[in-house]
Amino acid sequence: MKPYFNAEDTKIKRLGKATIESPLHISYGISKNDQILFHPYPGIDQEGSPVTFEISQPEKLIYFDPTKVTAGIVTCGGLCPGLNNVIRAIVLGLYHAYKVRSIFGIRYGFQGFIPKYGHPLVKLTPEVVADIHEQGGTILGSSRGAQSIEEIVDSLERQNMNMLFIIGGDGTLNAAAKIAKEVSERNLKISVVAIPKTIDNDISCVSRSFGFETAVETATQAIQCAHTEAQSYPNGIGLVKLMGRYSGFIAATAAVAQRDVNFVLVPEVDFDLEGANGFLEVLRARLEQRSHAVIVVAEGAGQKFFDSLQVETDKSGNVKLKDIGVYLQKQIQEYFQKLHIETNLKYIDPSYIVRSVPANTNDGLFSAILGQNAVHAAMAGKSDLVVSIWHGVYCQLPIALAITERKKLHPSSRLWVNVLESTGQPTFKAG
Amino acid sequence: MKPYFNAEDTKIKRLGKATIESPLHISYGISKNDQILFHPYPGIDQEGSPVTFEISQPEKLIYFDPTKVTAGIVTCGGLCPGLNNVIRAIVLGLYHAYKVRSIFGIRYGFQGFIPKYGHPLVKLTPEVVADIHEQGGTILGSSRGAQSIEEIVDSLERQNMNMLFIIGGDGTLNAAAKIAKEVSERNLKISVVAIPKTIDNDISCVSRSFGFETAVETATQAIQCAHTEAQSYPNGIGLVKLMGRYSGFIAATAAVAQRDVNFVLVPEVDFDLEGANGFLEVLRARLEQRSHAVIVVAEGAGQKFFDSLQVETDKSGNVKLKDIGVYLQKQIQEYFQKLHIETNLKYIDPSYIVRSVPANTNDGLFSAILGQNAVHAAMAGKSDLVVSIWHGVYCQLPIALAITERKKLHPSSRLWVNVLESTGQPTFKAG
Amino acid sequence: MKPYFNAEDTKIKRLGKATIESPLHISYGISKNDQILFHPYPGIDQEGSPVTFEISQPEKLIYFDPTKVTAGIVTCGGLCPGLNNVIRAIVLGLYHAYKVRSIFGIRYGFQGFIPKYGHPLVKLTPEVVADIHEQGGTILGSSRGAQSIEEIVDSLERQNMNMLFIIGGDGTLNAAAKIAKEVSERNLKISVVAIPKTIDNDISCVSRSFGFETAVETATQAIQCAHTEAQSYPNGIGLVKLMGRYSGFIAATAAVAQRDVNFVLVPEVDFDLEGANGFLEVLRARLEQRSHAVIVVAEGAGQKFFDSLQVETDKSGNVKLKDIGVYLQKQIQEYFQKLHIETNLKYIDPSYIVRSVPANTNDGLFSAILGQNAVHAAMAGKSDLVVSIWHGVYCQLPIALAITERKKLHPSSRLWVNVLESTGQPTFKAG
Amino acid sequence: MKPYFNAEDTKIKRLGKATIESPLHISYGISKNDQILFHPYPGIDQEGSPVTFEISQPEKLIYFDPTKVTAGIVTCGGLCPGLNNVIRAIVLGLYHAYKVRSIFGIRYGFQGFIPKYGHPLVKLTPEVVADIHEQGGTILGSSRGAQSIEEIVDSLERQNMNMLFIIGGDGTLNAAAKIAKEVSERNLKISVVAIPKTIDNDISCVSRSFGFETAVETATQAIQCAHTEAQSYPNGIGLVKLMGRYSGFIAATAAVAQRDVNFVLVPEVDFDLEGANGFLEVLRARLEQRSHAVIVVAEGAGQKFFDSLQVETDKSGNVKLKDIGVYLQKQIQEYFQKLHIETNLKYIDPSYIVRSVPANTNDGLFSAILGQNAVHAAMAGKSDLVVSIWHGVYCQLPIALAITERKKLHPSSRLWVNVLESTGQPTFKAG
Repeated sequence: MKPYFNAEDTKIKRLGKATIESPLHISYGISKNDQILFHPYPGIDQEGSPVTFEISQPEKLIYFDPTKVTAGIVTCGGLCPGLNNVIRAIVLGLYHAYKVRSIFGIRYGFQGFIPKYGHPLVKLTPEVVADIHEQGGTILGSSRGAQSIEEIVDSLERQNMNMLFIIGGDGTLNAAAKIAKEVSERNLKISVVAIPKTIDNDISCVSRSFGFETAVETATQAIQCAHTEAQSYPNGIGLVKLMGRYSGFIAATAAVAQRDVNFVLVPEVDFDLEGANGFLEVLRARLEQRSHAVIVVAEGAGQKFFDSLQVETDKSGNVKLKDIGVYLQKQIQEYFQKLHIETNLKYIDPSYIVRSVPANTNDGLFSAILGQNAVHAAMAGKSDLVVSIWHGVYCQLPIALAITERKKLHPSSRLWVNVLESTGQPTFKAG
Repeated sequence: MKPYFNAEDTKIKRLGKATIESPLHISYGISKNDQILFHPYPGIDQEGSPVTFEISQPEKLIYFDPTKVTAGIVTCGGLCPGLNNVIRAIVLGLYHAYKVRSIFGIRYGFQGFIPKYGHPLVKLTPEVVADIHEQGGTILGSSRGAQSIEEIVDSLERQNMNMLFIIGGDGTLNAAAKIAKEVSERNLKISVVAIPKTIDNDISCVSRSFGFETAVETATQAIQCAHTEAQSYPNGIGLVKLMGRYSGFIAATAAVAQRDVNFVLVPEVDFDLEGANGFLEVLRARLEQRSHAVIVVAEGAGQKFFDSLQVETDKSGNVKLKDIGVYLQKQIQEYFQKLHIETNLKYIDPSYIVRSVPANTNDGLFSAILGQNAVHAAMAGKSDLVVSIWHGVYCQLPIALAITERKKLHPSSRLWVNVLESTGQPTFKAG
Repeated sequence: MKPYFNAEDTKIKRLGKATIESPLHISYGISKNDQILFHPYPGIDQEGSPVTFEISQPEKLIYFDPTKVTAGIVTCGGLCPGLNNVIRAIVLGLYHAYKVRSIFGIRYGFQGFIPKYGHPLVKLTPEVVADIHEQGGTILGSSRGAQSIEEIVDSLERQNMNMLFIIGGDGTLNAAAKIAKEVSERNLKISVVAIPKTIDNDISCVSRSFGFETAVETATQAIQCAHTEAQSYPNGIGLVKLMGRYSGFIAATAAVAQRDVNFVLVPEVDFDLEGANGFLEVLRARLEQRSHAVIVVAEGAGQKFFDSLQVETDKSGNVKLKDIGVYLQKQIQEYFQKLHIETNLKYIDPSYIVRSVPANTNDGLFSAILGQNAVHAAMAGKSDLVVSIWHGVYCQLPIALAITERKKLHPSSRLWVNVLESTGQPTFKAG
Repeated sequence: MKPYFNAEDTKIKRLGKATIESPLHISYGISKNDQILFHPYPGIDQEGSPVTFEISQPEKLIYFDPTKVTAGIVTCGGLCPGLNNVIRAIVLGLYHAYKVRSIFGIRYGFQGFIPKYGHPLVKLTPEVVADIHEQGGTILGSSRGAQSIEEIVDSLERQNMNMLFIIGGDGTLNAAAKIAKEVSERNLKISVVAIPKTIDNDISCVSRSFGFETAVETATQAIQCAHTEAQSYPNGIGLVKLMGRYSGFIAATAAVAQRDVNFVLVPEVDFDLEGANGFLEVLRARLEQRSHAVIVVAEGAGQKFFDSLQVETDKSGNVKLKDIGVYLQKQIQEYFQKLHIETNLKYIDPSYIVRSVPANTNDGLFSAILGQNAVHAAMAGKSDLVVSIWHGVYCQLPIALAITERKKLHPSSRLWVNVLESTGQPTFKAG
């Protein structure tokens, strides 16, 4: 597998030469070996100039004088378990490790930069963030929708901010890259560091995103309930819609983890409803044989059924998906009514629960380390980057690289093969 | 408070004289004092012939010879935490305490009695039920919809059943009373014992129904998520629909337990949407002041808004409620759009999760005791009764008494006063 | 069952005539019927002057002018789930319902009253207590050990306190009664209201104490682990020590709830270790038959084995129990070593976990209502009382009545019979 | 970092040429590139013949004819979350993916092979293992202690076993290597595949061991309780002993995850108790300043304090550690008594709870994949190996390589630096 980028595309930008001694207990000098291979397999890629990512670590020399730093933190887009853990780790890292004293939260996403909304900044201290990791959501608030890049950078200038930590998904990372560009064009010395947030775990070159494991854990509980409902009635059908706009990682992982799922539908794998091998007929055969069934569908699956409908977008410019859960429910009910087969379908959409619970222990730990790495990067004067983990190593990527492509579930990946083995489901193709 | 029934209405029927010595470790002789007062307050009611309920207890002399007993267990209607605990306690009580060896589960509610459905009986033993309390739902399955009382009693005769344990709600208790009547008219010696199941906790003369506490606990978790969503967005609104067809106990109790709820709407307390003091305007004022709000609505609230629509019923004959959650969501969104106020409403309907989780520890214990009491009653030859708890004392009522009225949340009860204090909500009356 | 007290012993003291209109939404006038029967069974007790408890309710006329009230809250003795819920409910009740603005927490139990310890008071507001119910323990801190009643009342006078809420167990209630007496002798108008705290659920005339259900739930998890350990090794023995100094309610209830327990040892039921029917021999027979066993022992069980040892007391004057868990462990190991039988004993003492977890939903709700009732009582000018629940009705008792006797597990009670049925254990008597 | 082994040391043995077509949905041909670099960093190691591990994957050609396979599964040593998940995944993988029908569990570890113990084999089917992942422990049972390698291999021959799955720790892996050697010397065709079990996460070349994350999560709950206890009393000290015989990973990770820990003591970092900078004096200073403290100690920490005592070993030959928890408790109490400072120390040892809970969702998933990989390896005729994960890639190592060294917590690792930052603790060195 060749990457879609070259060695030089992975280079992290720096605002300037770091000359100030780090106050940290342990920090490291920069060497040309502080890299993790993109492709950690032996062979030709590793010779010459292999593609690598820069490893995240606290550096011996930092760019910013901690006593003069003003830092901002902003959270954008949908909720995801771990947001507060990231905020908390950034605040504690800046405050305790680097002795930065001027840290502010921007309210309600990028809205908080725009004067017309009138959202005041929030002063962040260790006391304010002490227990926030025990709550879901984000104490800063969030919002959807693009805001003017110019106004955002105006605001950064006005507040004398030297570093901005942006926690958000695809669209937010796009905006972050533009902010970094505007900052650079204005010749400002502001570090822009992004922590990628995607409950779908679909950001490129990021093995694992914070909140994903918690989301899977919470989703399995909803699936368990669907299974209970399905088993408890004649021809009981439990239908669970989970997140996954373009990538079915949550649906697939939860299905493998919970094991009582019979059918998984994801955006990456096409399926038909009609026909002798279509989904509806396969479902009928399953009910005949076992008299109950559990279906998990990712929200982005089967969008082809809505092709004839008009495309709508939300405020962030994301395409508004048609509701495949409600659609499937209707199709299933009509199919069996036509066949005069009585069924008991229960539809569960746990999305707002899945995304708003607090991070579990392991996800909390992971979120905290990402936050710490973001702090180390910013203090070293790095900018226009996202923090990542790749093959078990914490590292950094230019923002551009993280948003070029989207990570998808490959139909011959171990995860999808596991889904097929766990469910025994066929390919649902008409004809 | 005078009861709507007389002392003689509380008398439990017996199939005949009990003459067999109970094999139990500890059991009690019957005395005329084995009664709990309906109204345990001093005063005139207690003189003469006060209204009392018969206390549940294992009796010294039993009616059925355990070696000759065949027992049946059936679960009907919607799921409720604790169903499997009740089943398990009945099986273990019959098997271990009384040494009954012939115990059967009827599959999928009353359908399991009707030959045309072809559901086979399930032999129940301690091994089969050993771990079922760790699962939600009912291992026997359930169904909605009336079945022929004659066919049910035919089936009881055919299977030589001496006792039938019926676990179900309002409609099921109605059917249970009819089964007991038919049994009596055919002069059969079959004990019919009901364990009232109502996640809404709305059965008359039953202080607490199994599964209610677990339902409240699970509902509070969904409300917590709604609160997190609401707080995380500008003008965030979390709207949670909970069970409660005619009685708002779950909604009210969960709101008091979770404490972050701002508005509770229940069937028992009328409210208007429009007008200067209507719900929508009060909500607007709240958002202006605090910029987020959490609303909990019981499914049976506000049915007056659907008055002009046609009444529909489900298979059990229950009136199909119009969906107040979806309706409210639409009304709120339209109201604020008209005012050009941007809001972020998140709608959570956790009903299928709330009803299908396993019972928590305390509810499990309570369910088990109800099951044991049902066994003691049946072995003693009592019939046409429901097991209950009243003022902390386990007791028994004639089925008729439990279904005459429905328990409702009184607007001047401590619970509703607590709701008002906890939320600070006004009466939402137009004008 | 005749009570050990008379009708007049249940009368609640009042500091004086209540003349101020209550600001509450709903409150009630006092009538002579606001009583719950001690003995809610029909018969002779109910005639003449039956023994009753005063029902807890907000009264129409209150004694204290809310604007002039200074209230204190103190928590004493060991931790118990729900302490913070009670504190929170008292603060919110005083603040929101009665508009009291001067509320203080006393730090570290009665130490907080004594100048030499130098613990400052803590100002309590709705903001301070907003989320404390999500934490275990007590935000006020606690301590053991008696303090001078005079110094405590001196401190109350010095701080101008009009009401003191005392949350504590047996010893604390004793002190509370003495404080009330001293207050009365000095002719002060200070309401002393106690909320009984006993994780053992052993206070007389109190059906249920806050935290008990949570303790049982947490204990069952530890028993589950003991069961897992026992089953996983040849001759595996899981031994769990639970709280229960004089009353085995936690041990017995948890054993019935968890169901995998084979032996329960409590203070109320004597047992021998040695002899053909002694505990050790019965355990051996069980291992021979099933090759694993789970034992639950209450800390106060089997104290007779330490009779020859000297009695020690802790700072609160409680007798220091010898450790029956460690003793049993040693006896079991020696017994089987002597018989050359290899066993795998795992000893779990989850006490500090059981007592320090947060209250579960239902216990949280219950704790809150007790706190509210304490507030209503104090505002009405009642004193020298404990809040209680009796036969499902919230009521009040004079402190003296609650501490005269200790509630114990009766060997012919339903709970103990349930233990015997669930475990199948014999009486362990030598000979 | 150079590995302590060479490229050829990582080569996996095969029983013979695989010639049978795999029945799997998706399987892969073997290529020389199916390797993950031991050291995935660019530089000299990657040239010539780099050190790599063989990637785990289902192969196109398998060695064993599924219809003729008899497989055995054995679990040894201490409990660890995930054992049942591994067993279940092996059974389901063999049964469903390869259609193997003859699968047996060996009871109580290696004892189950030795005739004199008389433990019968357990037939394992999908029905038997369906729900076992919801329980902690191992349904097969376990035991400690070496057994004769000859007798074990005799038993394998007697039962016609072609593959043995061994789940166990250090000592067990040692025995597994010897079994593989004996099998090879007898020229038998039996695949020996090990799944390393170590709740301490201390096996070399294995990034993560199953159960570790669940253990950390459970341990944090106990630490939370210790924190609650400590905060609730004047000079409150919460002391928690966690697992970690030679490696402090659980203690360190849980301390970073929970964040309220003030001192972490692990085997890898020496500390003194006495002296001006010793632990006891630092603890005193902390109490003076903050009046409470939480200490987490790994069981293998501070063994130097027992140097003068005699070394004892358990049945598996593991050195019996002296109890540092109890020792510390005593030292602390004596130190403060001498200084006449009153403290409230609560000692929590949650070890048996931590190791016997069921795996959490993510650990369950991970355990299952390890089990599947073990099946693929065995079916392909590989032997004398452990399944592992290395830099995010599932791979395999010769058993010898996994047991040569023990993985330890490096004092300059990110984890330990995190502990230092989170706790602020100094080095506790006398003088």
